[in-house]
Amino acid sequence: MHYQRILEEIAAEVRPLIGQGRVAEYIPPLAAVPHDRFGMVVRTVDGQLFAIGDAHERFSIQSIAKVFALTLAMKLDGDDIWLRVGREPSGSAFNSLVQLEIERGIPRNPFINAGALVVLDAILSHGDELLLPFIREAAGDDSIGYDVVVAEAERETGHRNRAMAHFLKSFGNLHNDADRVLDAYFRLCSIAMSCAELATAFSFLATGGGSIATPRQAKRVNAVMLTCGVYDEAGDYAYRVGLPAKSGVGGGVVAVMPDKFTAAVWSPGLSEKGNSLAGTMALELLTTKTAISIF
Amino acid sequence: MHYQRILEEIAAEVRPLIGQGRVAEYIPPLAAVPHDRFGMVVRTVDGQLFAIGDAHERFSIQSIAKVFALTLAMKLDGDDIWLRVGREPSGSAFNSLVQLEIERGIPRNPFINAGALVVLDAILSHGDELLLPFIREAAGDDSIGYDVVVAEAERETGHRNRAMAHFLKSFGNLHNDADRVLDAYFRLCSIAMSCAELATAFSFLATGGGSIATPRQAKRVNAVMLTCGVYDEAGDYAYRVGLPAKSGVGGGVVAVMPDKFTAAVWSPGLSEKGNSLAGTMALELLTTKTAISIF
Amino acid sequence: MHYQRILEEIAAEVRPLIGQGRVAEYIPPLAAVPHDRFGMVVRTVDGQLFAIGDAHERFSIQSIAKVFALTLAMKLDGDDIWLRVGREPSGSAFNSLVQLEIERGIPRNPFINAGALVVLDAILSHGDELLLPFIREAAGDDSIGYDVVVAEAERETGHRNRAMAHFLKSFGNLHNDADRVLDAYFRLCSIAMSCAELATAFSFLATGGGSIATPRQAKRVNAVMLTCGVYDEAGDYAYRVGLPAKSGVGGGVVAVMPDKFTAAVWSPGLSEKGNSLAGTMALELLTTKTAISIF
Amino acid sequence: MHYQRILEEIAAEVRPLIGQGRVAEYIPPLAAVPHDRFGMVVRTVDGQLFAIGDAHERFSIQSIAKVFALTLAMKLDGDDIWLRVGREPSGSAFNSLVQLEIERGIPRNPFINAGALVVLDAILSHGDELLLPFIREAAGDDSIGYDVVVAEAERETGHRNRAMAHFLKSFGNLHNDADRVLDAYFRLCSIAMSCAELATAFSFLATGGGSIATPRQAKRVNAVMLTCGVYDEAGDYAYRVGLPAKSGVGGGVVAVMPDKFTAAVWSPGLSEKGNSLAGTMALELLTTKTAISIF
Repeated sequence: MHYQRILEEIAAEVRPLIGQGRVAEYIPPLAAVPHDRFGMVVRTVDGQLFAIGDAHERFSIQSIAKVFALTLAMKLDGDDIWLRVGREPSGSAFNSLVQLEIERGIPRNPFINAGALVVLDAILSHGDELLLPFIREAAGDDSIGYDVVVAEAERETGHRNRAMAHFLKSFGNLHNDADRVLDAYFRLCSIAMSCAELATAFSFLATGGGSIATPRQAKRVNAVMLTCGVYDEAGDYAYRVGLPAKSGVGGGVVAVMPDKFTAAVWSPGLSEKGNSLAGTMALELLTTKTAISIF
Repeated sequence: MHYQRILEEIAAEVRPLIGQGRVAEYIPPLAAVPHDRFGMVVRTVDGQLFAIGDAHERFSIQSIAKVFALTLAMKLDGDDIWLRVGREPSGSAFNSLVQLEIERGIPRNPFINAGALVVLDAILSHGDELLLPFIREAAGDDSIGYDVVVAEAERETGHRNRAMAHFLKSFGNLHNDADRVLDAYFRLCSIAMSCAELATAFSFLATGGGSIATPRQAKRVNAVMLTCGVYDEAGDYAYRVGLPAKSGVGGGVVAVMPDKFTAAVWSPGLSEKGNSLAGTMALELLTTKTAISIF
Repeated sequence: MHYQRILEEIAAEVRPLIGQGRVAEYIPPLAAVPHDRFGMVVRTVDGQLFAIGDAHERFSIQSIAKVFALTLAMKLDGDDIWLRVGREPSGSAFNSLVQLEIERGIPRNPFINAGALVVLDAILSHGDELLLPFIREAAGDDSIGYDVVVAEAERETGHRNRAMAHFLKSFGNLHNDADRVLDAYFRLCSIAMSCAELATAFSFLATGGGSIATPRQAKRVNAVMLTCGVYDEAGDYAYRVGLPAKSGVGGGVVAVMPDKFTAAVWSPGLSEKGNSLAGTMALELLTTKTAISIF
Repeated sequence: MHYQRILEEIAAEVRPLIGQGRVAEYIPPLAAVPHDRFGMVVRTVDGQLFAIGDAHERFSIQSIAKVFALTLAMKLDGDDIWLRVGREPSGSAFNSLVQLEIERGIPRNPFINAGALVVLDAILSHGDELLLPFIREAAGDDSIGYDVVVAEAERETGHRNRAMAHFLKSFGNLHNDADRVLDAYFRLCSIAMSCAELATAFSFLATGGGSIATPRQAKRVNAVMLTCGVYDEAGDYAYRVGLPAKSGVGGGVVAVMPDKFTAAVWSPGLSEKGNSLAGTMALELLTTKTAISIF
């Protein structure tokens, strides 16, 4: 497969979309990101890395980090984590309190905000600073860290997440202090990584887990990504892209083709549903051009 | 009208209901209230007071206090308060976040918890301690005050109200610090008064406002009580009782018959909807026996 | 009280609103009604009738007729009708299926479409043509009848009501054939009456029932009108107008002041919530100028 | 792969579940199916068929037939079908009218009842009897047909589907007569096939479409099955089974492993969510024992 040539074709074809969509503006550090960025990486399971555009520039990975949190919680708590969080697609906005109320405090899945809070709460019960070392290990890169400016901005505007944490507490589904969990959450969302770093850090999901997870865990994280990874657009992603994927409001998306490759793409302009506009198109083109998808 | 004889008949007829229903148990001070209490007062607009049972024992008036808060906010902000809170019946549980989300942070009415938080926020913008003096003035009794034990208990278990306050903040409909508003809320709910004190303090609503409100304000507070005063049981109350009324989970209910009387009743056993079981029956008997209602 | 002078003042003050709002356009006969109509009648309990404007022109009373249906069902079935329909305000659009699904086929109240279907079903179980004679008796006028053109138009576009009837059937809360009930419904909505005729036909609600209902029934119909009579605007009506009222999408509204008068008003331009714009203002002015309301 | 041996192991391991769960009882012909049935087939893409238990007994395939309807609609209308129906998981019961109302008449996906009605309506606009020949072609078997008894029973109890059809009509999203579409729907649900016949008829989805669909269409039907094929259990199925699958309330489930095999299983006892209890476990065991899944 000529991945480099395919990436070049993709970059040419998505160009009209770059700068389109809306950039996340709820915190100044995200609003300040230049709208015209585009980078993409394909990393094969044998370790070859193909890159184009701003593939090595770090950006705020935001919700993509929730995949690391879920994987760590599954290692620490096994299947018990599913007693406190579901794994069904949410069918509504990713930070809705409605669903949480109807379902009595059990978030629909670990990738909506309420679910990530519960996952972080579970991890915090095992120790104070377990997540960042785990992410660094997956990425094989100790320079990865929190972006203090982003974390502080999230904290200042995070009234809805704060509401969510107290709401979970009211249902008894938050064991640690709400403020401690919120702190961990705001920091998690602030992590900065590049497409190249993300494609590498996610490679355990294409290789049956490696040193990071068991084959069973890797398969299951992929399954949860496919049904719940891209907010309320899971069906459309499966239909158009056909790969498990996780997106973030920073404009990043990571996709996994088991036994073949991981792909990471970044472009800050978002669709109405909150997924990178050019990034989604780029992944759709990738599975069309390679004729490789899970279906 | 032989109010005293009517009260005696009522007390006899509701006796089988006393001790029935569930007593509010979410905080220890409420759970500790003896289940067998029953008191009732009718106070005519010319100042005669008829009483029976535990009519002079103070209890936690809880949400009944929201009527004072609304009246004060209407005095301070006029009709502007209605830009921030609706006046339609809620059609769902009084502390639901669902409706608040659907209606973009504008609580349905000032008597659901979210609405009371907004009303208190509006009052706090005028000064720090305006509400208690106002209530004391309405009651003509400076001994009325907060119950510190109840307020502290509310604070400790108030995760859902905390969630609500942060949620309102996320919609921009809370101008003061969330914790400051919550403090005022938990204190408001803790006020202790007797049936006799409540009937007196509410008399301005039967007499066209007196020194407490304008005639127009009094009429309108009555209207809001009729459609929103008894949680999700407004229609049933209008049908059975036929008077504007406000209830609290402490088991108190106050009702107003304009130009005739105010009535206050207390019995801690609650219906499924959260209104005093014996209290509701007592008010229904009152309008049946006197043949007086607003309809 | 100088009702005639008050009506003249009201007519002058609401003039700027006439022609405003949207006229119901879902069926051609309603869309064809001239937008500039305005008529109003006050009928005192001693039988004096004060009128202004188009007070004697018949229009499609639409949902106003549901009050007659409820009264007749209460006569025929007594309190049993409340086993099949609630009496709480709906808190959502008057023809919503959502609420019906959540509440397992028990309509919230007899004035939302689903509730009216159940009420008609109950009446049909007693006989085939009971309602029109009942309405003629209340009005004291045998010339009142169905408007065949309107009824046919309703039938042709009534997909949502048809959905509702089958939905009620699926919950077992429709005993007769769905098409038979729908027929009765479409005819009920087509009745044409003038303001003068409506004020007269509703007078039993201001006089304790007369020959049409018992005092208890009259009071209770008033209570249901106050909490449920004006779609999702019950709270606002109670606040601004302060009288039990029932409106229809034809632009009519009837209000009741027990022991004093009935008032009927007609102007086809509707508010967003579906109530007559000028009609609502006219009723608000009536209670302001007479200083008479139930509160 | 020793599929036959694996099927024998599976049959032994699921035995305790057979007879568990509830059998669909809303129509007599389904309620009359013996609870102890279990059959399973794996058909490899090269045409080998492995079977165990009641693999050749026909049962009511119910919603499984919706896959054929979707495939045919995609052939007839191309991507235009997606203008009238979404492809997102529903997040609520498969026959809910709530979601349909909130989303203004556009069903969430083609596998919930409302979506299937729209898909059938689209097919009916091309001709009267196109679907059964298409299913027979996919199955290579002209003996497949409607079960008149089941179809009639569905018609008699189908009040909710009737409500749905009229509701779709009210939104303009049903172009043909509601009764004609309902007829087609009730017949579609009545089709009877065996596990062996289903595995064969679905093989086009494992082989890139064959003569039945284009490769792109086959991939996309698989994607829609994965996210929407098993009612509100899509996430759990992806997690536990890891294959696109479609279930029916008759207790059948068909799953597709692209480029490898199709599998069909039948056991009438259902989980709370409406999927075959033993069937789901059998498919989970199949992917565990073969170590083959799409993830």
